[in-house]
Amino acid sequence: MKTIKDVASLAGVSVATVSRALNKSGYVSEKSRLKVETAIKELDFYPNEVARSLYQKKSKLIGFLLPDISNPFFPLVAKGIEDKMNQMGYNLILGNVQESSDKENEYIRTFSQNNVAGVLSAVEGGFRNMKGMPFVMLDRVASNKEYSVYSDDYQGGSLAAQAVVERNPGEVIVMVGPRDISKSLVRSAGSIKVLEENNINYHLFETESFQFESAEKAAVHLLEKFPKANSIIASNDIHALAVMREAIRKGIKIPEELQIVGYDDNPYSKLMYPSLSTIAQPAYQIGYKGAEILCARIEGKPIKEKNVQLPVTLEIRESLRKKDKDE
Amino acid sequence: MKTIKDVASLAGVSVATVSRALNKSGYVSEKSRLKVETAIKELDFYPNEVARSLYQKKSKLIGFLLPDISNPFFPLVAKGIEDKMNQMGYNLILGNVQESSDKENEYIRTFSQNNVAGVLSAVEGGFRNMKGMPFVMLDRVASNKEYSVYSDDYQGGSLAAQAVVERNPGEVIVMVGPRDISKSLVRSAGSIKVLEENNINYHLFETESFQFESAEKAAVHLLEKFPKANSIIASNDIHALAVMREAIRKGIKIPEELQIVGYDDNPYSKLMYPSLSTIAQPAYQIGYKGAEILCARIEGKPIKEKNVQLPVTLEIRESLRKKDKDE
Repeated sequence: MKTIKDVASLAGVSVATVSRALNKSGYVSEKSRLKVETAIKELDFYPNEVARSLYQKKSKLIGFLLPDISNPFFPLVAKGIEDKMNQMGYNLILGNVQESSDKENEYIRTFSQNNVAGVLSAVEGGFRNMKGMPFVMLDRVASNKEYSVYSDDYQGGSLAAQAVVERNPGEVIVMVGPRDISKSLVRSAGSIKVLEENNINYHLFETESFQFESAEKAAVHLLEKFPKANSIIASNDIHALAVMREAIRKGIKIPEELQIVGYDDNPYSKLMYPSLSTIAQPAYQIGYKGAEILCARIEGKPIKEKNVQLPVTLEIRESLRKKDKDE
Repeated sequence: MKTIKDVASLAGVSVATVSRALNKSGYVSEKSRLKVETAIKELDFYPNEVARSLYQKKSKLIGFLLPDISNPFFPLVAKGIEDKMNQMGYNLILGNVQESSDKENEYIRTFSQNNVAGVLSAVEGGFRNMKGMPFVMLDRVASNKEYSVYSDDYQGGSLAAQAVVERNPGEVIVMVGPRDISKSLVRSAGSIKVLEENNINYHLFETESFQFESAEKAAVHLLEKFPKANSIIASNDIHALAVMREAIRKGIKIPEELQIVGYDDNPYSKLMYPSLSTIAQPAYQIGYKGAEILCARIEGKPIKEKNVQLPVTLEIRESLRKKDKDE
């Protein structure tokens, strides 16, 4: 590995001069700076991050705790984080927690052991044991909102119900996501409020998780329990797609007999036929904005908004009926 | 931060004893070991990875270069890597290259600057500039097979064509994935071989990428160009799902009039109706096995198989017609 000494010797200047040029601190003559830059290029020299990290007690790494890498929502959040962090010269270590608190603790420990500069966490309890590392909560922020970026789940639940209410709702089923993830309850509370205000008859149907493994079973069970359902407000797109598949398989016409609205705007929701109407969450922006706040925290810059709530939107596609004429 | 000195002082032993106990080298009496372990627990002490990394010139981090985090194939590979690496005490830094060679070089540099112990790369050119880091190529391995784990694309292409040939093929379209990714050509070569052996009439249809953005357009274009197609061998599941959606939208009956076979066994292919028949790639196993080989390289252990080719399988679902009776 090349060192700062090699650069100094090739440039014909002192190590201290190279150091000043690298750190952009103190006086370096234009001539010396040019020599140093040429030597750096010639040697393909770059400062060792680990040495820098040990000295400064923080690295150019950022940790990201995410609940489930196979749910496309989180890779999109990761992309937003990455784009912002790369601009700022940081890189990501990913901790895929798979909804397990053991893995969560293990990853937080790894982040700390590697002197990460800060952590972004989309894991509900992820703020505990942060061992003094600056962090920002993303998406699942109910338990700690000190610094957080999330979308408006209550509004999302309301928009989904409103869409159904305006389209001859009939018998409505509200799928409630896992109870240990607070946002599922907030979403369904938003839906229930709108349904009750409009005196619409509805049933709740609880699902165990947001993951694939449970979606197919839940879909079969839901349509057995409520064979005459006319509208479904699903807990997320994966569950909505599973219900849609099961309904079509049973010969139920979508959206004429059964309309469905999902949650997430997962890229696959557009590839289905009928395409899935859904609540679009700004996944990429959640990541990007969270990264922005974390950078400001790390660099001790003033932060205007510590808690950013981003709006969601209703994407109307083929799985919703036409609006009632009198609306 | 707690140090080894704090542990020694609480345990009432020397720093050298703590060090021997931690490194499991040299003699430590049972009594002292117990004292050290108790002190470690009490202080919640863990050795600083960065200090260790500087000393040993390698860290407990592994880099993973992947082409596109939003294609569900790669998060699954990452999960396989992670499960194996966590067992071995390593953690992952993810480099999402987004099919850009600038980003690729940037990430390789980051890996090197953080003294990663090794790199796994699913990026075609990713073996260049590895700067002496041990690496294993995954999935897209055509350019360098020194150490590699991949699935049998030729077999996959053959199986897909065989499935179509056995089911009253009619007019067959072979979608060819992006030419700059060698595996797309290998897959279509496998398909073409089988179609020609069976004297089946076929057309090629090239697609620009494996990504979402191009899939919908490609699907519309394909069915305009070949409105009477009876069988489609798709370049991947995303493209297969897009064609299926466009066909159903046009009132084409699947599989009676048009049968489709995808590639990947992306979890969404089961959620469609009709569910998508596809070639299942062992994504998780590619990651897991690659991690195994990389660990062996890092630790200087003997490696039996440097190149592991994993078999693929045909998953028959609803998008394929019934087999011809005389088969």
